[in-house]
Amino acid sequence: MVKIEQDILSKNDAYAHDNRRAFSAQRLFALNVVSSPGSGKTSLLVRAIEALKDRLAVAVIEGDQQTSTDAERIRATGAPAIQINTGKGCHLDAHMVGHALESLKPAPGAALFIENVGNLVCPAAFDLGEARRVVVLSVTEGEDKPLKYPDMFATADLMLLNKADLLPHLDFDVGQCLANALRVNPNLQTLIVSAKTGEGVAAFAAWIEASAARHGASVAKG
Amino acid sequence: MVKIEQDILSKNDAYAHDNRRAFSAQRLFALNVVSSPGSGKTSLLVRAIEALKDRLAVAVIEGDQQTSTDAERIRATGAPAIQINTGKGCHLDAHMVGHALESLKPAPGAALFIENVGNLVCPAAFDLGEARRVVVLSVTEGEDKPLKYPDMFATADLMLLNKADLLPHLDFDVGQCLANALRVNPNLQTLIVSAKTGEGVAAFAAWIEASAARHGASVAKG
Repeated sequence: MVKIEQDILSKNDAYAHDNRRAFSAQRLFALNVVSSPGSGKTSLLVRAIEALKDRLAVAVIEGDQQTSTDAERIRATGAPAIQINTGKGCHLDAHMVGHALESLKPAPGAALFIENVGNLVCPAAFDLGEARRVVVLSVTEGEDKPLKYPDMFATADLMLLNKADLLPHLDFDVGQCLANALRVNPNLQTLIVSAKTGEGVAAFAAWIEASAARHGASVAKG
Repeated sequence: MVKIEQDILSKNDAYAHDNRRAFSAQRLFALNVVSSPGSGKTSLLVRAIEALKDRLAVAVIEGDQQTSTDAERIRATGAPAIQINTGKGCHLDAHMVGHALESLKPAPGAALFIENVGNLVCPAAFDLGEARRVVVLSVTEGEDKPLKYPDMFATADLMLLNKADLLPHLDFDVGQCLANALRVNPNLQTLIVSAKTGEGVAAFAAWIEASAARHGASVAKG
């Protein structure tokens, strides 16, 4: 059982390596966006695309077990999007992303958002070749989630604490949630956001833009 | 003029290198805490010491042009503290810190807080040998400060946005301030805190504890 898992992961890592090379060749800044179902990933990406409009080209790979509604929501912003349906699969893998990239053909220098299947467990182990991993946690999910699902928070670079507009109606301790997340990953960056009100979206967009610029510079150097 | 500045900085860097070696030998996790005057550094450190009590030993080096009131405030918590008065000097340098360390004798494995002189400019250039640099910005100072004093924010690892309790009384746009800070430094970690109410202090303490543990692990490995 452990052996099979290792085979799958090492195969995935080889594809992730190929993706990373393709992203670098096309100067793409790839984000792997992970979370539980219903945390608000697509709504946040729509907000970020609007905030980045005229500053940075964006293209999106959408992962879901079924339906193409998320890709349609992205396309309504004007950004190109492609939907991957994983069927019984509980996460995207690097091979799927490599194929999607060939069809999507993002503009060189774009930010490439890869919205993973809603699942706080399985996507943690699968490198997609991304430059940065963003985990979205909704305040409706409870402040203990970083402790209960540590792999996802340990492998993320940025945590977006979403649905902040609901805080007045909930017994959710933001400070405790951040403390839990930082215990698991002391290098984690965090932002408090609301896809509904737009709170924190300017900061998220600035992070994307500045990280993409720095990543592009380091790709050019390396 | 430029030549003199380079001489001073390269001399400082040599002392910083010595400090880093001494910190490593004593398994100390050193934080260099910088900000404008009156941002609330000492109050935050007092809060952090209380939150870390019974979890992590803490010792403090206090820097000020004159007076030893800050060291006295720290000692009231039970933590050892030593005051450096810089006189006309506008920042701590690595040589001063090395001397203070010899007198302070922190417990092995402790967190060592080094509170710099209140000044958002000069301390940016002087490495003290710290493991992490923390910049404190008070919401009373305006959201444009990361853009106006970029060196300080570009060289920091964590920004504490303090005096959050005053937000209801101010026209301060937290999102815009975070966006400005992330534009200058896309890798900056940020926490919103209040030394008055204790908001965010648990998260800051968790960051210190987990960073110290990881730093100790990497020191032990390296």
